[in-house]
Amino acid sequence: MIIVMKKTATEEQIDSVTEKIKAAGHDTNISRGTNRIVIGAIGDESKLTPEMFDPMPGVEFSMHIVKQYKIVSRESHTTNSIIDIRGIPIGGKQIQVIAGPCSVETQAQMDLAAQQVVASGCRLMRGGAFKPRTSPYTFQGTGVDGLKIFRTAADKYHLPIVTELMDVRMLDTFLEQDVDLIQIGTRNMQNFDLLKEVGRINKPVILKRGLSATIAEWLMAAEYIAAGGNHQIIFCERGIRTFETAYRNVLDITCIPVLKRETHLPVIIDPSHAGGKSWMVPALARAAIAAGADGLLIEMHPNPCEAWCDSDQALSPQELNQLMESLNDIARAIGRSI
Amino acid sequence: MIIVMKKTATEEQIDSVTEKIKAAGHDTNISRGTNRIVIGAIGDESKLTPEMFDPMPGVEFSMHIVKQYKIVSRESHTTNSIIDIRGIPIGGKQIQVIAGPCSVETQAQMDLAAQQVVASGCRLMRGGAFKPRTSPYTFQGTGVDGLKIFRTAADKYHLPIVTELMDVRMLDTFLEQDVDLIQIGTRNMQNFDLLKEVGRINKPVILKRGLSATIAEWLMAAEYIAAGGNHQIIFCERGIRTFETAYRNVLDITCIPVLKRETHLPVIIDPSHAGGKSWMVPALARAAIAAGADGLLIEMHPNPCEAWCDSDQALSPQELNQLMESLNDIARAIGRSI
Amino acid sequence: MIIVMKKTATEEQIDSVTEKIKAAGHDTNISRGTNRIVIGAIGDESKLTPEMFDPMPGVEFSMHIVKQYKIVSRESHTTNSIIDIRGIPIGGKQIQVIAGPCSVETQAQMDLAAQQVVASGCRLMRGGAFKPRTSPYTFQGTGVDGLKIFRTAADKYHLPIVTELMDVRMLDTFLEQDVDLIQIGTRNMQNFDLLKEVGRINKPVILKRGLSATIAEWLMAAEYIAAGGNHQIIFCERGIRTFETAYRNVLDITCIPVLKRETHLPVIIDPSHAGGKSWMVPALARAAIAAGADGLLIEMHPNPCEAWCDSDQALSPQELNQLMESLNDIARAIGRSI
Amino acid sequence: MIIVMKKTATEEQIDSVTEKIKAAGHDTNISRGTNRIVIGAIGDESKLTPEMFDPMPGVEFSMHIVKQYKIVSRESHTTNSIIDIRGIPIGGKQIQVIAGPCSVETQAQMDLAAQQVVASGCRLMRGGAFKPRTSPYTFQGTGVDGLKIFRTAADKYHLPIVTELMDVRMLDTFLEQDVDLIQIGTRNMQNFDLLKEVGRINKPVILKRGLSATIAEWLMAAEYIAAGGNHQIIFCERGIRTFETAYRNVLDITCIPVLKRETHLPVIIDPSHAGGKSWMVPALARAAIAAGADGLLIEMHPNPCEAWCDSDQALSPQELNQLMESLNDIARAIGRSI
Repeated sequence: MIIVMKKTATEEQIDSVTEKIKAAGHDTNISRGTNRIVIGAIGDESKLTPEMFDPMPGVEFSMHIVKQYKIVSRESHTTNSIIDIRGIPIGGKQIQVIAGPCSVETQAQMDLAAQQVVASGCRLMRGGAFKPRTSPYTFQGTGVDGLKIFRTAADKYHLPIVTELMDVRMLDTFLEQDVDLIQIGTRNMQNFDLLKEVGRINKPVILKRGLSATIAEWLMAAEYIAAGGNHQIIFCERGIRTFETAYRNVLDITCIPVLKRETHLPVIIDPSHAGGKSWMVPALARAAIAAGADGLLIEMHPNPCEAWCDSDQALSPQELNQLMESLNDIARAIGRSI
Repeated sequence: MIIVMKKTATEEQIDSVTEKIKAAGHDTNISRGTNRIVIGAIGDESKLTPEMFDPMPGVEFSMHIVKQYKIVSRESHTTNSIIDIRGIPIGGKQIQVIAGPCSVETQAQMDLAAQQVVASGCRLMRGGAFKPRTSPYTFQGTGVDGLKIFRTAADKYHLPIVTELMDVRMLDTFLEQDVDLIQIGTRNMQNFDLLKEVGRINKPVILKRGLSATIAEWLMAAEYIAAGGNHQIIFCERGIRTFETAYRNVLDITCIPVLKRETHLPVIIDPSHAGGKSWMVPALARAAIAAGADGLLIEMHPNPCEAWCDSDQALSPQELNQLMESLNDIARAIGRSI
Repeated sequence: MIIVMKKTATEEQIDSVTEKIKAAGHDTNISRGTNRIVIGAIGDESKLTPEMFDPMPGVEFSMHIVKQYKIVSRESHTTNSIIDIRGIPIGGKQIQVIAGPCSVETQAQMDLAAQQVVASGCRLMRGGAFKPRTSPYTFQGTGVDGLKIFRTAADKYHLPIVTELMDVRMLDTFLEQDVDLIQIGTRNMQNFDLLKEVGRINKPVILKRGLSATIAEWLMAAEYIAAGGNHQIIFCERGIRTFETAYRNVLDITCIPVLKRETHLPVIIDPSHAGGKSWMVPALARAAIAAGADGLLIEMHPNPCEAWCDSDQALSPQELNQLMESLNDIARAIGRSI
Repeated sequence: MIIVMKKTATEEQIDSVTEKIKAAGHDTNISRGTNRIVIGAIGDESKLTPEMFDPMPGVEFSMHIVKQYKIVSRESHTTNSIIDIRGIPIGGKQIQVIAGPCSVETQAQMDLAAQQVVASGCRLMRGGAFKPRTSPYTFQGTGVDGLKIFRTAADKYHLPIVTELMDVRMLDTFLEQDVDLIQIGTRNMQNFDLLKEVGRINKPVILKRGLSATIAEWLMAAEYIAAGGNHQIIFCERGIRTFETAYRNVLDITCIPVLKRETHLPVIIDPSHAGGKSWMVPALARAAIAAGADGLLIEMHPNPCEAWCDSDQALSPQELNQLMESLNDIARAIGRSI
């Protein structure tokens, strides 16, 4: 932690800062420069915060110099973590494409979708039973019934399932239905009570990035889960909010190399929600793999035009098949496989 | 709802769109322009969504022309709604300043703070028992004990209390402690399960704007509460996330006149969280009142430097007193009072 | 300047950094903490840049601790600078409202507008002869003829004029027409050649903030002007670009107290371009004055509906008169006058 | 163009709007829905603007339904345009990588760089003689001398050159030095006088996207160039400004498929400026090619650590060589070549 003093800071003000640092059990280093005096606090940074020093007289600003995430950081664990989803690895050389409809509708729809997911070569299936919708007057998902339909369909094809948990009170139901990979959605990235609950269970978790969450906040949200004991965390970028209005969100591809440097955990990409239109998905999916993503989360519906939700962003089964071929070629070009 | 067809759209594609509109029970109007054909769907817009039409062949784009919020809209209720908080009105000619510490620490701290809140002329008190913190390793609030301490302190001075609800499982406790005004925080603006729950109770709710929520999303989040039957909703702007790094967030003062036009519900401003530094609070608070805000939510701590949380953004009791005088003058200048 | 070394940095890497610092003529201070080593460079920071150190092996990051703007900084000049515009002061206790049409149209329109500006109590007039328009197919301004019309109209009422300079090649014409206050527009905030040119003349300059310029970049752009010798600079905030689509831009009121702390130069606000709609102007204008702005730049047109440009954001003369009264009351409330 | 009337609009207000439309020589279509009346203006949209209708009584909002760019639009020219740079095609099946140092320093540096550019397999060279720097106190480029050095070095290796034009007054010098591809930089994307000037010459132009320019604004900026007669325009995305602080800018990969749909002109990507760190460049470059970019603009310096400018974002010659191999594999995977 460093504390930069104002040019006009007095010796008394400098002493107050060093005394506060020492009271917290740290040593200090004082660097007297031409224009500023910089005080370094030597010891475990996590016990000190900028808030402790910023309001003190004579202080210009203070800042941590060590990042505040620990368990999820690359510094604490230098090799890549591979998360096992019922035998399917995420984070290794093999790239996983998780496909399926935006929302669970009927048993027939999910059975057909599961068959198509397998046929396309994907090894995991997604589907939403609980839907976070902007308007209270639109379809809110088929709920617990939908979850059972999904489990039944996926089991026929031995597919592990991925679905979103929105409410802590539904966690037991998710465990009863043995959801293989629990998704924490964009709007809940900083729902800290929900993060703490999934931190206490032994199930892999996909943590989607909040719409305007910084990389640091996202890593800290993962740290909430990890601090509870659950280290099976997969980051999922799904587009961030910017000024641009020509597409729903901006897929932040730069987060891939940056997360790979900052954390040992896998990173996947959701190109469907990022752009919001199915015709953008192939380009974004290819870019994600080329940039080093460990997997993709893609919306596919047996009949996109008739989907109950987000019908304009789902691929058809034929489009998914074509995309998988193309992704295979990209994966090979960078020494990986799909 | 209008559907704009591509320049190259065929008559068959136009027919498909009009048939889909008619199948939903609506009439159509076709406007054949020089470069585009625009199809209007005539009837209740809420049954149609752009997603239904955007993936159809020949469609360029489609859009609602009526806003999707109803109960909270000014169109549904043309006069200003005044929310009554145990006898204190919010939304009328009198402006309310809600002051108090960021977090509940001890009974002595809260007793002193309550006394200072009253002395400054404020009529409601704020305080956090459950704290949404970016890091799992920092102080998380004093919880239920803190809530009881707050209730006790406020009761001594007959102050209604405002505090944040983060977890649906805590709602009963909030009702037992008779929290007078329940705050839904920034990170939970789109926690739809939480919104539904506070929509079912008979308690006023402050709905803070999400860090990057649009005005339309914010109004729709309020509609979630209103749709459950609870119309006692107060909007609170607390700064939005932008590219600027010189201050924590950008206080969006423009939302005040815009919300006043779009909704009949009160609008208050939190200048403390917006800027993140106590020295910015007076200027932002004055601007908010001048722009037409119905109230303010301000952090004040008996001893800011020793606060357990956000110590750099709390006013001292003396600073709050001075600010109240200045706000009084501004309020008078626009024909209101504090 | 401080350089933070990676946890894994070797002594050789530390030595390379300190040698590079010494080679630039600076002393060093090394602070060996528990998790990081921080190297301080002692001496004139402006000779060092983070780019010099960031690519070196073992370096985690480096940063300036002193701000890079000098002449415009409050540190270099502690009292407020007052800029004199032909006898009208900007930056003192008296607040200046600069009003006039978006664009110069005809002599009759400008004569009438000038009369109305004076009648409303404003002391300076604005008007655009050269217009930066998004589309090449829309009205581009009346150019040099417009400038002469403006000068003629303003002279009749002894009003100093404010108008935008877009092209370095027009500077001589601006000097010939004796433009009293030259505006550098939003899109040219980092047109460094233009900034250098207005830095060489002896005329006051309004520097509008770029649509997504940080406070630091804005101050550095002003430093370009100041470094040339022209210190008569007025900052003008006119709304920043964010994710919000309900209004054109977000007026960043927080910049007022922040600039007042960082620089000695005056700060004015353009509420007309910020919101983009005339009905938003009064609330934003009042907020700006309440927050401490030294002036306003407001669009007023004799007949807004018939304006050739931005007709939806101009006030009518009657609306301007009403606003001036209300601003007067706000100004008095904070101990200033209009 | 459609004009949506308020629910409360009177017949007189509707008549005023239709009369204004007819006065402009257009027909009208009136669609009377359940909640709103929508008036369609039939005819050439470019003569009407929302500003003409938005301030009229009874109007809720109005909008264009046809995009305002013409020459650059895919609608006006359905096949891909290929721009020829002294025999090197951009926009065809072959992808072009333009490499070279951030800034021209010395003849020896540029000679060496040119040799390395050729050796890596690149066919065009970049280099900056005029540098847009945030601070007036940092290196501003070697100017006209630098331009000559660049021309000399590139000619030795028969490389077409790309360099940035910042000031209209330098255009003649650029033509004298026969710059093969003129770059309009990020900060000048809406420097309309500069755009008009390069619109009058017969030289290909790279138009970089403004830091917070929307796709629509960018296309309109290109339309400024095209409207002057110069249709040899190449779009270059270089990262947009967002809330994220972990990297300089966010590379907006989604713009590639979107521009490919909206315009017939080539699209290239600058991964060096986007991320701001050389270690991010390979991932971003691969993603860009995979997403369909027609080329890349990459910073390479013979000795990055000693570069006079942006030394932390330049690749070394060895890194460029490795990247080219990897890009070759990606290009083949999508049926293109490098």
